[in-house]
Amino acid sequence: MKLYDAPWAPSPRRVRIFLAEKGIEVPREVIDLRTGAHLTDDYLRINPRGAVPALELDDGEVLCESAAICRYFDALHPDPPLFGATPLEIGRIESWTRRIEGDGYAAAVYVLRNTAPAFKDRAIPDAALTITQIPELAARGAIMWEGFTQALDRRLADREWIAGGGYSFADITALVTLDFARAAKLVPPEGLTQLARWHEAAAARPSATA
Amino acid sequence: MKLYDAPWAPSPRRVRIFLAEKGIEVPREVIDLRTGAHLTDDYLRINPRGAVPALELDDGEVLCESAAICRYFDALHPDPPLFGATPLEIGRIESWTRRIEGDGYAAAVYVLRNTAPAFKDRAIPDAALTITQIPELAARGAIMWEGFTQALDRRLADREWIAGGGYSFADITALVTLDFARAAKLVPPEGLTQLARWHEAAAARPSATA
Repeated sequence: MKLYDAPWAPSPRRVRIFLAEKGIEVPREVIDLRTGAHLTDDYLRINPRGAVPALELDDGEVLCESAAICRYFDALHPDPPLFGATPLEIGRIESWTRRIEGDGYAAAVYVLRNTAPAFKDRAIPDAALTITQIPELAARGAIMWEGFTQALDRRLADREWIAGGGYSFADITALVTLDFARAAKLVPPEGLTQLARWHEAAAARPSATA
Repeated sequence: MKLYDAPWAPSPRRVRIFLAEKGIEVPREVIDLRTGAHLTDDYLRINPRGAVPALELDDGEVLCESAAICRYFDALHPDPPLFGATPLEIGRIESWTRRIEGDGYAAAVYVLRNTAPAFKDRAIPDAALTITQIPELAARGAIMWEGFTQALDRRLADREWIAGGGYSFADITALVTLDFARAAKLVPPEGLTQLARWHEAAAARPSATA
C-alpha cells in the first residue's frame, strides 16, 4: 500500500490529518506539485486526473478522492469514529462536511483556480481536460466565503466542535479549508470569535501538523 | 419524522430512490418549487438555505444535504448496504460518488443554474445569498459533461454497476445526475453503449420511479 501525497495541497492534508487522528501509518510517496510531478506520465498512470491524494493498494488498484480514502481507512480502523458512531452523529457529520466542502472549500477553489497563473487552462483539477479560467468566479467565491464563515461561526456558538460531539471529519475538512483559503487570500471576516476559538483549538491538535 | 421533498429536483430524488431500495417509508411533505414554496418564511425556518430535501426529526432537529440524510437512514437500516459492506467497497462507492457529483452533477448545475431565467441571482442554491449567473460556466459544464460521460462509459465496460459490486449509492447518484442533466440539455455523446446499457438497467429498477 502506498499513499501519493503532496505537502501543500488541501486534499492530501485532509487524509494526513485523518490518519494522524486514527494513529495509522501508511507508506507515502511525495508528488512535487511545484515541478509538475503530478502531470508526468508516471503519475498519470496512477491517477489519470493528475490529482493527489491517491491510494495504491497492494494489488495495484488505486483509490482516488480524499473522502473515499478516509472512509476506506475508517472501515479498517473504526476507532476513534471520526465519521460518527450513532445514526444522528453520522448524519450531522456528513451534513456539515458537505456544507463545508460546497460552500467554503468550493469558494476557495473558485478564487484560486480561476485567478492564479499556475492554474491557467486547469481551472478544475483534471489533467484530461482543458478548462479555461473564469475570473468572475473570484467574486462569487468571495460572497460564498463570507456566508460560509458566518454560518460556521453561528454553528460554533454553543458547540466545541462543528458536528456537536467530538472532533470529527467535519472539523478536519473545515481546518483544511480555512488554511487552504488563505492561499486564495480568503480569511474569515473580523469579529467571528467562535470560529477563531475553534480554529485555534483545531490547529493546536498534534494531527494538524501531519 | 418528516421528509421535505420535491418532485422534480435531483437531490430529493436521490433520497427517494435510496429509501425505496432500502424499503423504508417516511412521512413526506411536498414543497412546490415552481410556486417558490421553498423560499417562504415557513420553509426557511426549516432550512434557511431554502433547499430540499430536509429531514425534520421528532425533536425538531433538521438534517440537510441528501447524502447526509441517506447516511442517517443507512445507519438505522444497514441492509442492503448501498454504501458498501467491506472497506474496499466502501472506498470504491465513495470515490465514484464523489466523482459523479464533482464532474457530472456539477456540470449540469453549472449549465442550468447559470443560464435558466428561473435561477437569476440564485446561481447557487442558498436562499441567503445573491449569486449572479455566469453564462461562461455553461461552456465549462459542457466540457466537463463530455469527459464525465466518457469516463463513466469506460468504467462500465467490464462491470454491471459502477462501483463493481451490487447496485450502490454511486449508481443512484449517477442515475439522478443523468436524468437531471437533460434539463440542462446535456445528454451522453453518441456511441457510449456501456453507459446506455447501464442507464436502461438502473432506470428499470422499481426504485427509479420513487
